[in-house]
Amino acid sequence: MKALKIKALKIPEATIIRLSVYSRYLDYLVKKGVATVSSGEIAEGVNSSPAQVRKDLAYFGEFGTRGVGYNVQNLHKEILNILGLEQKWGVIIVGGGNLGTALTQYKGFQERGFVIKAIFDNDEDKIGTKLGDIPIYAVSEMEEYISKEKIKMAIVAVPSRYAQEVVNKLVEADIKAIMNFAPRVITVPKEIELRNVDLAVNLEVLTFNLKNKN
Amino acid sequence: MKALKIKALKIPEATIIRLSVYSRYLDYLVKKGVATVSSGEIAEGVNSSPAQVRKDLAYFGEFGTRGVGYNVQNLHKEILNILGLEQKWGVIIVGGGNLGTALTQYKGFQERGFVIKAIFDNDEDKIGTKLGDIPIYAVSEMEEYISKEKIKMAIVAVPSRYAQEVVNKLVEADIKAIMNFAPRVITVPKEIELRNVDLAVNLEVLTFNLKNKN
Repeated sequence: MKALKIKALKIPEATIIRLSVYSRYLDYLVKKGVATVSSGEIAEGVNSSPAQVRKDLAYFGEFGTRGVGYNVQNLHKEILNILGLEQKWGVIIVGGGNLGTALTQYKGFQERGFVIKAIFDNDEDKIGTKLGDIPIYAVSEMEEYISKEKIKMAIVAVPSRYAQEVVNKLVEADIKAIMNFAPRVITVPKEIELRNVDLAVNLEVLTFNLKNKN
Repeated sequence: MKALKIKALKIPEATIIRLSVYSRYLDYLVKKGVATVSSGEIAEGVNSSPAQVRKDLAYFGEFGTRGVGYNVQNLHKEILNILGLEQKWGVIIVGGGNLGTALTQYKGFQERGFVIKAIFDNDEDKIGTKLGDIPIYAVSEMEEYISKEKIKMAIVAVPSRYAQEVVNKLVEADIKAIMNFAPRVITVPKEIELRNVDLAVNLEVLTFNLKNKN
């Protein structure tokens, strides 16, 4: 296996998302004790094509050996490394309503090394309490917390009308990456990574498929 | 504008997701009173390229007029039609915990014509009550409700360990499309449309970008 080298600067986002999917499948193979895997087997495991798997991996160097396939453990580790998941990431959630509460309990974050460190809310009844092990602080304490704890990532789970204001505060507090759930156009300076999660899009892929079946 | 005709049977999912994004931008233009738009302007509005916009639309026929661009209202309507959004869709949620509750309040669903009709849960304290206007029923009543109300779509927002069992019940009840939030491998018969929402993937796109900046 050659050393990791990012060949192209512009990696399609769809590739990154597929890498994330491959790594979950490889994790499953590692746990099953599988030693080597072909691009065809990966493709079958994640419902893709072997050519797609090879193309996605080719952005990052040469991982496999022709005729032998990929070493499962190495490839798994390399992909996690590419995704920045060789470390744990502390994440804060702004908004301690139903969505914020649901996210503190979301197993999918912990499994991938994302650790919810604190929630920030403006509700006096919530401030100073905990959700499980996770403390709820006032939004006014956010900037100091981010700086002190060196937090880089935040999840915005506030009602839409407050989302831009909260994002502005996070940017001032020097956060680097934001995942926003508010279905509203949010603007950030271009050095900030912003990802809008639009849950309705998932339903639209389903309605498209329902409509265009047969 | 030529009549809508789906040229290729296999439309990439990334195209469907982008159509969804284009339609939101076109909705914004309709509300602003803009009459025509070029692929370049759409691309700029959604942070894509003109070639990508044209390629995505080309799957579905010829919408624009060379040198004039697209009629905003027509294109908006055509894309909603392609996505199956010319009608409203009744949706049920299984699981009335924090996530299910958050989803009943999610504005992004209503805006796109998805109407949450009912929640199903096993908690005796919740059954028979309402979340806002939305009734909570027992899971044992689900099959009859789906049949009576002709529901085609369901959202699964139960703890991971119950997800497959709930999905099996939905399939038996003849549901056609399922959006699943449990970060676990779920299997369905191949005639059922299943979409797994993995919220951690969004954070992984952010960590990838943070790691590979510069």
